[in-house]
Amino acid sequence: MQEKLYFDCDYMAGAHPEVLQALIDTNLTKRVGYGCDDYTAEAREVIRRVCNAPEAEVYFLVGGTQTNATVIDGVLAHHEGVLTAESGHINVHESGAIEATGHKVLTLPSYDGKVRAEDVDKYIRNFYADDTYEHMVAPGMLYISFPTEYGTVYSLAELEALSSVCHSHNIPMYIDGARLGYGLAAEDGDVTIEDIARLSDVFYIGGTKVGALFGEAVVVTNTKLLRHFFPLVKQHGALLAKGSLLGIQFSALFKDDLYFRIGREAVSKAMRIRDAFAAKGYEVVGNSPTNQQFFRLPNDVVDRLLHHASFEMWGPRGESESVVRFVTSWSTTDEEVEKLISLL
Amino acid sequence: MQEKLYFDCDYMAGAHPEVLQALIDTNLTKRVGYGCDDYTAEAREVIRRVCNAPEAEVYFLVGGTQTNATVIDGVLAHHEGVLTAESGHINVHESGAIEATGHKVLTLPSYDGKVRAEDVDKYIRNFYADDTYEHMVAPGMLYISFPTEYGTVYSLAELEALSSVCHSHNIPMYIDGARLGYGLAAEDGDVTIEDIARLSDVFYIGGTKVGALFGEAVVVTNTKLLRHFFPLVKQHGALLAKGSLLGIQFSALFKDDLYFRIGREAVSKAMRIRDAFAAKGYEVVGNSPTNQQFFRLPNDVVDRLLHHASFEMWGPRGESESVVRFVTSWSTTDEEVEKLISLL
Amino acid sequence: MQEKLYFDCDYMAGAHPEVLQALIDTNLTKRVGYGCDDYTAEAREVIRRVCNAPEAEVYFLVGGTQTNATVIDGVLAHHEGVLTAESGHINVHESGAIEATGHKVLTLPSYDGKVRAEDVDKYIRNFYADDTYEHMVAPGMLYISFPTEYGTVYSLAELEALSSVCHSHNIPMYIDGARLGYGLAAEDGDVTIEDIARLSDVFYIGGTKVGALFGEAVVVTNTKLLRHFFPLVKQHGALLAKGSLLGIQFSALFKDDLYFRIGREAVSKAMRIRDAFAAKGYEVVGNSPTNQQFFRLPNDVVDRLLHHASFEMWGPRGESESVVRFVTSWSTTDEEVEKLISLL
Amino acid sequence: MQEKLYFDCDYMAGAHPEVLQALIDTNLTKRVGYGCDDYTAEAREVIRRVCNAPEAEVYFLVGGTQTNATVIDGVLAHHEGVLTAESGHINVHESGAIEATGHKVLTLPSYDGKVRAEDVDKYIRNFYADDTYEHMVAPGMLYISFPTEYGTVYSLAELEALSSVCHSHNIPMYIDGARLGYGLAAEDGDVTIEDIARLSDVFYIGGTKVGALFGEAVVVTNTKLLRHFFPLVKQHGALLAKGSLLGIQFSALFKDDLYFRIGREAVSKAMRIRDAFAAKGYEVVGNSPTNQQFFRLPNDVVDRLLHHASFEMWGPRGESESVVRFVTSWSTTDEEVEKLISLL
Repeated sequence: MQEKLYFDCDYMAGAHPEVLQALIDTNLTKRVGYGCDDYTAEAREVIRRVCNAPEAEVYFLVGGTQTNATVIDGVLAHHEGVLTAESGHINVHESGAIEATGHKVLTLPSYDGKVRAEDVDKYIRNFYADDTYEHMVAPGMLYISFPTEYGTVYSLAELEALSSVCHSHNIPMYIDGARLGYGLAAEDGDVTIEDIARLSDVFYIGGTKVGALFGEAVVVTNTKLLRHFFPLVKQHGALLAKGSLLGIQFSALFKDDLYFRIGREAVSKAMRIRDAFAAKGYEVVGNSPTNQQFFRLPNDVVDRLLHHASFEMWGPRGESESVVRFVTSWSTTDEEVEKLISLL
Repeated sequence: MQEKLYFDCDYMAGAHPEVLQALIDTNLTKRVGYGCDDYTAEAREVIRRVCNAPEAEVYFLVGGTQTNATVIDGVLAHHEGVLTAESGHINVHESGAIEATGHKVLTLPSYDGKVRAEDVDKYIRNFYADDTYEHMVAPGMLYISFPTEYGTVYSLAELEALSSVCHSHNIPMYIDGARLGYGLAAEDGDVTIEDIARLSDVFYIGGTKVGALFGEAVVVTNTKLLRHFFPLVKQHGALLAKGSLLGIQFSALFKDDLYFRIGREAVSKAMRIRDAFAAKGYEVVGNSPTNQQFFRLPNDVVDRLLHHASFEMWGPRGESESVVRFVTSWSTTDEEVEKLISLL
Repeated sequence: MQEKLYFDCDYMAGAHPEVLQALIDTNLTKRVGYGCDDYTAEAREVIRRVCNAPEAEVYFLVGGTQTNATVIDGVLAHHEGVLTAESGHINVHESGAIEATGHKVLTLPSYDGKVRAEDVDKYIRNFYADDTYEHMVAPGMLYISFPTEYGTVYSLAELEALSSVCHSHNIPMYIDGARLGYGLAAEDGDVTIEDIARLSDVFYIGGTKVGALFGEAVVVTNTKLLRHFFPLVKQHGALLAKGSLLGIQFSALFKDDLYFRIGREAVSKAMRIRDAFAAKGYEVVGNSPTNQQFFRLPNDVVDRLLHHASFEMWGPRGESESVVRFVTSWSTTDEEVEKLISLL
Repeated sequence: MQEKLYFDCDYMAGAHPEVLQALIDTNLTKRVGYGCDDYTAEAREVIRRVCNAPEAEVYFLVGGTQTNATVIDGVLAHHEGVLTAESGHINVHESGAIEATGHKVLTLPSYDGKVRAEDVDKYIRNFYADDTYEHMVAPGMLYISFPTEYGTVYSLAELEALSSVCHSHNIPMYIDGARLGYGLAAEDGDVTIEDIARLSDVFYIGGTKVGALFGEAVVVTNTKLLRHFFPLVKQHGALLAKGSLLGIQFSALFKDDLYFRIGREAVSKAMRIRDAFAAKGYEVVGNSPTNQQFFRLPNDVVDRLLHHASFEMWGPRGESESVVRFVTSWSTTDEEVEKLISLL
């Protein structure tokens, strides 16, 4: 264990040891490039099986921003934009990657990071009710994140409502699963990866934050979308020469349910941290049931903790109190959790 | 050794064992994201030293197409395009990634993959001599690859002439070093990495094909260029969350001259293969002094070899003879070379 | 006069007769293309003189959306976006033209269509105070419209405050003057075209809505901006082959103060309409001092008026009342105004 | 007549008097914007009738570069480029407008400005025969100009062959008709506007160079293409606020066959000029049957003519001889032709 405790985010270490071992085991075996190899083919098959989506197309990209930009650019027509919560990652923290592909990000109110089906419905109805709608950017798809940027998750009923409203308006629903493993393990959550596959048109299974060195698996269940995705991936600079590295890692992630184990263990550690802060009387902000936890702390507590631990200020430092974020991951140890709690 | 011999390309295995070991050694150490970590800082310093370019800015990206698109988009003004040999990778094999950023690829004659300084000069002079030049795409930078797509390398004199003509016309010269390690080890080559740094305005040191799992190090020696490169990298989806993985690998690549050793050994193996084909009376096409070798073979020889070895058809199969490519890399073993030669 | 009264917008007829006459007078005179002709040179000179901006660069484009997209694309760096009121034309009614050039539109609160200097200041300060700002789109310029989409105008003091805050943060201020002539004639307005030129870095003088058949004159007073604007205009498809038509029209518009006369007369008619509605007890919405007037009317009044007049529903029809817009222009006659008033 | 003779190009004067008269006649009649007016509806109907294409969609844009960029961007998928003769306007003289929309221009050999059906066929066959085709830009449509940039025209048989090869490969054929009127009047030409409509998937009827102040009519005969063209036109800044001006002009152009008369008369004048030069023993270059004529002249003749006439140098001035271009149009008078001939 490093002397300092690191809870800044869930991409602070390399790969889960089982994933790294798979890379080590295959390191010297030669294979063809660009994901045309057998490892990748096998990973595709595994993912189709896990998602209960035997017809789905599966592609492996390197990172989240890249995946969002490539998928969204591929799905939208020129005159269309993507609906998202105002707090959505694509609207805030991707340096304008979506707009750089020529598309507007259309914002909906954010409720702890989530959008509401009725807001989606209202937006689309109002849009087409406006006489000048052809002078405005058409809502061409819905982007949601699961879990959201605030650690919250949709219930199955909420996901079904969103899916239903999208399909009633004939726009696809895309789920950003950068932290999918942690979302599926949410406390009191009722959503499975099969639900995600069934209710979305396209989604991705995040590897970078959930055990891989890097990598995101795009699952296209509505195969009318993204028909020429391979050259688009290449054009976006998102095609890894050694594509096999992605296949190898994702096969490892779904071997013996590793992906789900990682999720459960990290969330369980996050819950212990949350409970410890709550027990000390600190306000739990937003009440996230996943691996990101937000607390409002007096500034002197913040400063004291910063001597021993690294974590993120969530927004600007307040006058007397500040909101902070602690994140667990597959690389968070029990020892680290205990030590953090002992510092409170 | 796998049963079949693989000579298709130089990105068929994982990472050089010394690079992989560095990843293993650091795997569980936590560090901040996006290349703001100490490993990356160290790798930047190492590269500045190796290149004798103490003032250079160094950035780490994931792959070659991505790097080309991000650098070229960052350097060019809206009305400018990039000059390249007709055979340049950016003009042929990147699925239109440069055009997708809004810029035209302007082509020059290719001489075994190389451009000539006088052609660059003539292009630019003719351009500005045309009354309608503001209706045409201005040549805004020069792209060359070292070595080229045909395995050839520029001599120091040729590089100096290109650099000189670019600077006389006030356009930057960019060198795609996807296979730089192999180019620097070219038989009878006289160019060093310090020359590359001194004569170009920006170049990249290829990791993917020269020992890393993935990764390219962009070295900006003309620091007036690419002033806001970080958000541009993010916008292009080219910012690796676990940026430290790039720093760790590049530090390993330049420890004990590994990068140069890889180059020399792979080229030496390629020379043995070339000499063996030549000794058998087969035509060596293009006479590349680096790790890519091209031969014209009777089709029955091609077919016989294909039973035991994997390699690339270079262009369409001819009626009785075809041109093929054999590529060595850090992962090519002496045993494989011997076995291939024994098949001739 | 047509039987029906048209108050929908300010681009419902051809050109002001004096402008049309200039086109008729020059119709058969041959001249070179693309604005390199003498008419255009003269119009540039006239505009520099009228604006008291002897060093300004002047370009003529065809329409407003095109002008906004070309100017904003030309000013911004890749990682930058444009600040605007949420209600700004570029954010609402240009079909995503700004995003299609790769840039995000960054929104500020709208106060009757206007932005406040303190909001601009706060946005920029907060942006750079955020540790992750390089992952977000940087505010690279300010866009305001004069008058705004709601007919309102900035006071001189407000413009000076905006200009000052922009320059203190080193970002340019761009003024969309699609209806500039009407804005300069605002009731109780205190802003002159010289002020516009002095306080902005680039602005455009709208022709389409203020007497021309079409055309917008871009005035670049901060000549460090937009250095290669001509090829950019061509690239955006905004370079008129018969560029002289723009020069001819703008010279006519500024002959004998026509542009300002048009503004004053149309605003005076709008004031008469406003006063007549107010006298009848109808609510004047927003209290615009320019050629666009907004009223809240009982639906039966709306329906009655629609039998005789054409005007725009401003937002959705309400249950019992609706907001409507009436617009005057150079083509609005006294007779039309009288007839409309008589209908109340 | 101006003192100097102008033969530089076919957009040197305003509008044909019959077109201008239509604008004068309608100038004060109010109508709705953006081409939703009755004039535009009528013009659409007229064009459908003239083209014998009752189902075609017709749109009116302002200029040629804009039209090419908007149509091509609308037709192509992300991974596709546009095939054209190397000499095609979109490849040479549009400041990179096509690439600015993200698409590569793919070049074919030019035979006096024309492409050959067999070259199109070969390009597409070779493309898909290449194993790496998904790393290259797919040929997604064919662009040809009628007449070409060299004044040449395709025969009906050639057009049919091109149309056939395109459809056999399932890519649309797009005809740039910037000078369509002059092409249809080509000496010994056998192509009608109905053939153009029948054999292409989309084409445009040039107004700017053939009698209008400005304007191009896009005719989409393959209505599976460009389904959301209106907002795309707006997004490209190509939607004229006073769209009616385009409808009015095109109705005038097709009233009493004006468009065809303009073509015939201008070509007839060009033929007289050609014959006069030939009779004097000067080399006619390229033998264009339309309104653009190219001659190789001794430099002293060039210089002598330049005292009295304005025309274009076609490429750089040679040592003793130079190639020049003379262009006629609707605005060329018999008197001007006589005077030019008398100067020889």
